[in-house]
Amino acid sequence: MLYIFTGNGKGKTTSALGQALRSVGEGKKVLMVQFIKGPWKSGEDEAYKKLAPDFHLVKMGKGFVGILNDTLPRAEHEQAARAALAFAKQEIESKKWNIVILDEVNNAVALNLISKDDVLSVIDAASQNIEHLILTGRDALQEFCDRADLVTEMVDRKHPYEKGIKAKRGLEY
Amino acid sequence: MLYIFTGNGKGKTTSALGQALRSVGEGKKVLMVQFIKGPWKSGEDEAYKKLAPDFHLVKMGKGFVGILNDTLPRAEHEQAARAALAFAKQEIESKKWNIVILDEVNNAVALNLISKDDVLSVIDAASQNIEHLILTGRDALQEFCDRADLVTEMVDRKHPYEKGIKAKRGLEY
Repeated sequence: MLYIFTGNGKGKTTSALGQALRSVGEGKKVLMVQFIKGPWKSGEDEAYKKLAPDFHLVKMGKGFVGILNDTLPRAEHEQAARAALAFAKQEIESKKWNIVILDEVNNAVALNLISKDDVLSVIDAASQNIEHLILTGRDALQEFCDRADLVTEMVDRKHPYEKGIKAKRGLEY
Repeated sequence: MLYIFTGNGKGKTTSALGQALRSVGEGKKVLMVQFIKGPWKSGEDEAYKKLAPDFHLVKMGKGFVGILNDTLPRAEHEQAARAALAFAKQEIESKKWNIVILDEVNNAVALNLISKDDVLSVIDAASQNIEHLILTGRDALQEFCDRADLVTEMVDRKHPYEKGIKAKRGLEY
């Protein structure tokens, strides 16, 4: 099955994390590959260790692309995203995992860091080798949604940034 | 801060669970009180033990109300929901938790199991005693959203039930 969590609202990555927590409780093995989030320390890093070895999180992104303090050459972002997708495909084909989460992979496609066809190829691999593939991130392509069993759009109805409150560690990142 | 995850799509409870996982990773203490889900065994039950004692889940619901195999008198559902809310308020006032999640409390209000005013009273208590209160469930009242810092509506764009696939243990419940 292919699940997609997209939209501009909070809850896409946290929902995938919650899915991981629930699935680990059922004895499943879950791999989460993060495409955009950088190597900085965040809440997940500490928490996922508590679920090891059944939940494994790999942060392969180089941080936000083209905004904030991003000074990396674009080629490095592209290389990191391609490496993340190749790694995910290899892990999927290894049949070691029941569930694989490609976190913010939709953003990586929308930013043209990786190609639509390469992701479709991973979707194909997943359908043959694992139980569930979960894609998160804004701007999921219609072609991905067409292949999905479940699509939820997280719609931002109200956000603390509107009030000028900064992201809080442990909640926002 | 008050967060609300509402809407008809999948991802509300899982997002709250993911938030719990992330927050526990930051050394926070998280209590989740479930209002509707029944006492049957599900994936969360096994997984949350791995996060104990920093994450504590209490299932106080009696299962779905008025549908499926529900044969309970309505008064028992009401009593269970009132007990869940009173317990949550007491725990909030104890200041033992950083984050409290009232899972499917919106449904309990929509079903008239508990009153709007009683929930508003818990929102007040939370603003004085804990860092974050998270309410999940369909049909969040506008008055709750008016008080919230963040509201995400999970919108169902595609769902496996449409294809006649039954809920899968470890993913759906």
